[in-house]
Amino acid sequence: VLKLSGKWISIEEPKIIKGYTEVIKKLVTEGIRPVIVVGGGSVARNYINAARLFNVPESHLDILGIEASRLNALLLASILQRYAYPRIPRDLNEFLNIWYSSDLVVICGGFQPGQSTTAVAALVAESIGCNLIINATRVEGVYDKDPRKHSDAKMFKKITLTELEEILSASSSFKAGGYEVIDPLAMNIMKRSKIYMRVVYGGNPENILKVVLEDADIGTLIIPE
Amino acid sequence: VLKLSGKWISIEEPKIIKGYTEVIKKLVTEGIRPVIVVGGGSVARNYINAARLFNVPESHLDILGIEASRLNALLLASILQRYAYPRIPRDLNEFLNIWYSSDLVVICGGFQPGQSTTAVAALVAESIGCNLIINATRVEGVYDKDPRKHSDAKMFKKITLTELEEILSASSSFKAGGYEVIDPLAMNIMKRSKIYMRVVYGGNPENILKVVLEDADIGTLIIPE
Amino acid sequence: VLKLSGKWISIEEPKIIKGYTEVIKKLVTEGIRPVIVVGGGSVARNYINAARLFNVPESHLDILGIEASRLNALLLASILQRYAYPRIPRDLNEFLNIWYSSDLVVICGGFQPGQSTTAVAALVAESIGCNLIINATRVEGVYDKDPRKHSDAKMFKKITLTELEEILSASSSFKAGGYEVIDPLAMNIMKRSKIYMRVVYGGNPENILKVVLEDADIGTLIIPE
Amino acid sequence: VLKLSGKWISIEEPKIIKGYTEVIKKLVTEGIRPVIVVGGGSVARNYINAARLFNVPESHLDILGIEASRLNALLLASILQRYAYPRIPRDLNEFLNIWYSSDLVVICGGFQPGQSTTAVAALVAESIGCNLIINATRVEGVYDKDPRKHSDAKMFKKITLTELEEILSASSSFKAGGYEVIDPLAMNIMKRSKIYMRVVYGGNPENILKVVLEDADIGTLIIPE
Amino acid sequence: VLKLSGKWISIEEPKIIKGYTEVIKKLVTEGIRPVIVVGGGSVARNYINAARLFNVPESHLDILGIEASRLNALLLASILQRYAYPRIPRDLNEFLNIWYSSDLVVICGGFQPGQSTTAVAALVAESIGCNLIINATRVEGVYDKDPRKHSDAKMFKKITLTELEEILSASSSFKAGGYEVIDPLAMNIMKRSKIYMRVVYGGNPENILKVVLEDADIGTLIIPE
Amino acid sequence: VLKLSGKWISIEEPKIIKGYTEVIKKLVTEGIRPVIVVGGGSVARNYINAARLFNVPESHLDILGIEASRLNALLLASILQRYAYPRIPRDLNEFLNIWYSSDLVVICGGFQPGQSTTAVAALVAESIGCNLIINATRVEGVYDKDPRKHSDAKMFKKITLTELEEILSASSSFKAGGYEVIDPLAMNIMKRSKIYMRVVYGGNPENILKVVLEDADIGTLIIPE
Repeated sequence: VLKLSGKWISIEEPKIIKGYTEVIKKLVTEGIRPVIVVGGGSVARNYINAARLFNVPESHLDILGIEASRLNALLLASILQRYAYPRIPRDLNEFLNIWYSSDLVVICGGFQPGQSTTAVAALVAESIGCNLIINATRVEGVYDKDPRKHSDAKMFKKITLTELEEILSASSSFKAGGYEVIDPLAMNIMKRSKIYMRVVYGGNPENILKVVLEDADIGTLIIPE
Repeated sequence: VLKLSGKWISIEEPKIIKGYTEVIKKLVTEGIRPVIVVGGGSVARNYINAARLFNVPESHLDILGIEASRLNALLLASILQRYAYPRIPRDLNEFLNIWYSSDLVVICGGFQPGQSTTAVAALVAESIGCNLIINATRVEGVYDKDPRKHSDAKMFKKITLTELEEILSASSSFKAGGYEVIDPLAMNIMKRSKIYMRVVYGGNPENILKVVLEDADIGTLIIPE
Repeated sequence: VLKLSGKWISIEEPKIIKGYTEVIKKLVTEGIRPVIVVGGGSVARNYINAARLFNVPESHLDILGIEASRLNALLLASILQRYAYPRIPRDLNEFLNIWYSSDLVVICGGFQPGQSTTAVAALVAESIGCNLIINATRVEGVYDKDPRKHSDAKMFKKITLTELEEILSASSSFKAGGYEVIDPLAMNIMKRSKIYMRVVYGGNPENILKVVLEDADIGTLIIPE
Repeated sequence: VLKLSGKWISIEEPKIIKGYTEVIKKLVTEGIRPVIVVGGGSVARNYINAARLFNVPESHLDILGIEASRLNALLLASILQRYAYPRIPRDLNEFLNIWYSSDLVVICGGFQPGQSTTAVAALVAESIGCNLIINATRVEGVYDKDPRKHSDAKMFKKITLTELEEILSASSSFKAGGYEVIDPLAMNIMKRSKIYMRVVYGGNPENILKVVLEDADIGTLIIPE
Repeated sequence: VLKLSGKWISIEEPKIIKGYTEVIKKLVTEGIRPVIVVGGGSVARNYINAARLFNVPESHLDILGIEASRLNALLLASILQRYAYPRIPRDLNEFLNIWYSSDLVVICGGFQPGQSTTAVAALVAESIGCNLIINATRVEGVYDKDPRKHSDAKMFKKITLTELEEILSASSSFKAGGYEVIDPLAMNIMKRSKIYMRVVYGGNPENILKVVLEDADIGTLIIPE
Repeated sequence: VLKLSGKWISIEEPKIIKGYTEVIKKLVTEGIRPVIVVGGGSVARNYINAARLFNVPESHLDILGIEASRLNALLLASILQRYAYPRIPRDLNEFLNIWYSSDLVVICGGFQPGQSTTAVAALVAESIGCNLIINATRVEGVYDKDPRKHSDAKMFKKITLTELEEILSASSSFKAGGYEVIDPLAMNIMKRSKIYMRVVYGGNPENILKVVLEDADIGTLIIPE
């Protein structure tokens, strides 16, 4: 399962999209059938911000964000053409139907209000018995402090979920940044089903091939303990 | 049936959206149950342009545009809250189910590749026996020449579909502009079911109330003959 | 994509049906996976005429015709048994789901009010990247005049869409006959996606094999220009 | 629940259809909300006979008959317009959804292979707690012998299900005729849920009003004992 | 098609479940793709009994039983993992979609009020052209008298459907027991489509392999005559 | 929104079910339209335990629990008959469709792996703008220690979400018990949308009426701060 930040599958980043289509085709050629989960990115933020001006309830804001992430997923599926299933599943049930009735790459956006697309990646990985999520984010990995504010922030090579929870709850000001990478539902699922997550910088699509094909030790490995 | 150009229900135009939510609430207060059809606007164009860089087939470009128009429709439904049905119908069948199983305002985006959201408005109007479409466009009405190129372009107060067809086929260079207002499928449906269309400037939401409540003679009336 | 007039897949023509089942099985044996689109034929006309007596709106007449064409499609699917998918898709979305989740022949009827089954064939061809539609009609090809009225009518070997549009709009009395073969939505899609159509006489199923397997130059070739 | 033989809601009998639309509108005016179940009639038989020539399995023949009965149901719904729900439910689950989410008349065709539309009427009546089915058939009521073969056949005014079962099993040659009226699944459901059935001649739509509004003692009353 | 009594796929019988999962995997290894239909067992009975205390209508009791049988089917599917399709079809239409769009084992529960899961097995077998149902029941086969009451009850090696009908209708007190094995809808379908049924003791999963792989003559063979 | 522990809507507790049906009817009589969310109870646990013997993945265990909770919800809906919508929504989208297309009480079970039925209650409350969840649990309210282990455990009259989070994270051994009442997703939604929760003892259905109609200060009030 490959989680792609909405920042990278976005109408503003055609070159990065091109990189990811090549990465996905390469994986398929190698006999690997990835699931891709795409975030909502700036389009999601724009719609949510527009709706917030009108006091739209939070769950409907989430639904706008989900539909925007599904639009990004559809863009990627349209570009991949015969490599990808042309319909974006709305929930885990639809995902499983598609997974078992075709042999194509499946691309997901969000599923339900109240949960991130990282949680979608965890739900999907668990349901098909996959034990590694690659999370291609805007940052290089997991840091002890917010790297955008602290020049001495240190990136972890490895960290357990328990350690990560402690860091996140200790530093409330860091929470927002931390949750860009992972949220409690994702952590809960990873813990109970022993799923690893490798957090890598998504701006370089080649990172995915390095992790999958060369088992490269880049970014941060989150250990489900 | 009210067709709103995607230009007006757009994350870039919160004030216009606010105007339309007030117009719709006013109509409901007056005992009118409108159907709203929303276009794809700039978000649709952005996704289509991004996909076109990768040689995505035309029908998949249309599907991206449809999903973008549905996202705009969802934004409007989210803002209207208890006035509007919270789900955007995917096709005429779903529309009819919603229309007959609730008494809320129904908001649509596009339905199918190969047809405009104006054709959606015509299909919807025909299926519920409504004989007037208000088409809130970027322009003031139907002109004899492209008003953005010709300063002497003259707007029609009334025009029949037959006359409109002649103008559109005579001036191929004007076609694109003409089709912003109406397309052949919409014309065909309007003609066979005697549905009128009033084309008004959508940047002023009050125009809708003037037409519906005061029967104002603004913009262009297209007569189904 | 093979468009079959409802005249030929009809309870009145079991021999022609038998011919087409053999043609389809032969194509499958040759490694070709056709999509078949079936028209409504006389059953559609009978239901529409019955409903017209009661002033049923045009869009509901179309829906009756669509359901009749789907009944014809189901008849063909029932006869083809394990060669064909047993469910008839209701719209392009369902078609794509079936197309990508099975490897069987898919049989369609109509999709939506306001469009012909020839337009369905064009939509389907475009969505799967197929660049030839074989249109098995009641006539031998496209003529310059209505062949049933003019003994000197001449059939074209080739004609471009632009020429065809001119003939159709020049001779309004011929329109009905012309639209038996093709409608504006189909022409529009064929033009934008460069899809060819070969119009052949459907009363002889062998014509399909001649076109597909021997590249025979029978009937009329419509060129998407 | 009103079961209408496919003979009466048929493209061949516009006058009878007109009669039934008036009957249904009258019932609605009286504050009654009927469910109508329509049989397949001659269109069903034609499709089944055509398919039988090709050795199509029995369950697929049933599916053709079900779709034909749904086409008849759609014809009636199209004619009733705003009195009837525009979609024909495919199964009991869909029926219940429509029943509880609208207040319109609901029109059904067949549901599933292996059961008659009379069984559909029984399933529907049971699920909404209705204790009377009016079965408008081609015959005047239930007879002790086949009335088309025996001039001395006697029609029952009343008969219990137990007596009816005995007659049907005693005279195997009469079975086909008997099952036109009722089948074992319908009998089973009527018995367990104490649902009465009045069998009347369907060629006279006024019979329905006589039974419902005047409690007239016409045809045969089947008593669930 | 393998019909398993709800007694055997039940939370109370993990060892028997284990046996059946091994049997199913063995069949798949041998190139056989079985359909499994699971009954409701004691969970169905408990819910039905609880609801009966509140005078719930019979059709809703059946629906509770159907959902309980689908829960048992889901349990078996969960255990079989990648051997079985993860979704339990709700009706024959969904079953056919799954059957033709995947190559996995399909597991069903009940379909519709008014019919047993044995009738489901018959419907499914007919629709895919399978001519043998193995019915794994609580008893060893079909007896001339209720074996739980009469120590001299004799089990048939073979019996025709016509003979079976006579036994069932002769001895009304035996009916309940007889219907555990088969019901009228199942008999009707088996007769018209020439489907055999072998009734075996379900408490020994190995019996299935003996019948399928060794053509063993155990239990009772019901002949569709 | 009323969350009922699966312990109380269970085949083992007909008297409690009876109490809740009377409570719900009373609320409807008072003009209140509640949403009921039912847990999985012992049937869920039994199926999960049976599946766990076979190493079924966690997400499939959750799906079994969800289906069991939906069976309990269906039992309650069957008993409420015309007061309740007869179909149990599978996800938030289906819930909203039912909520807006009928005026009946809607009964839910679980929605998705990885979240509790308490989270379902929070999602539902948020989506319809309801600001109070009544959580009828096995315990009397929220305690500072596990009341089943510590005789000096003290129940809070009021507690904020922030305080509750601290207690839960401080005492890891208490977590399981705490999560019976609430889980992180529910807390997150309640906090962002300012939804209160009153935790009361579910064994006494009258408690619900006391809270809703008399605004009684029983159990624990959780304040979304």
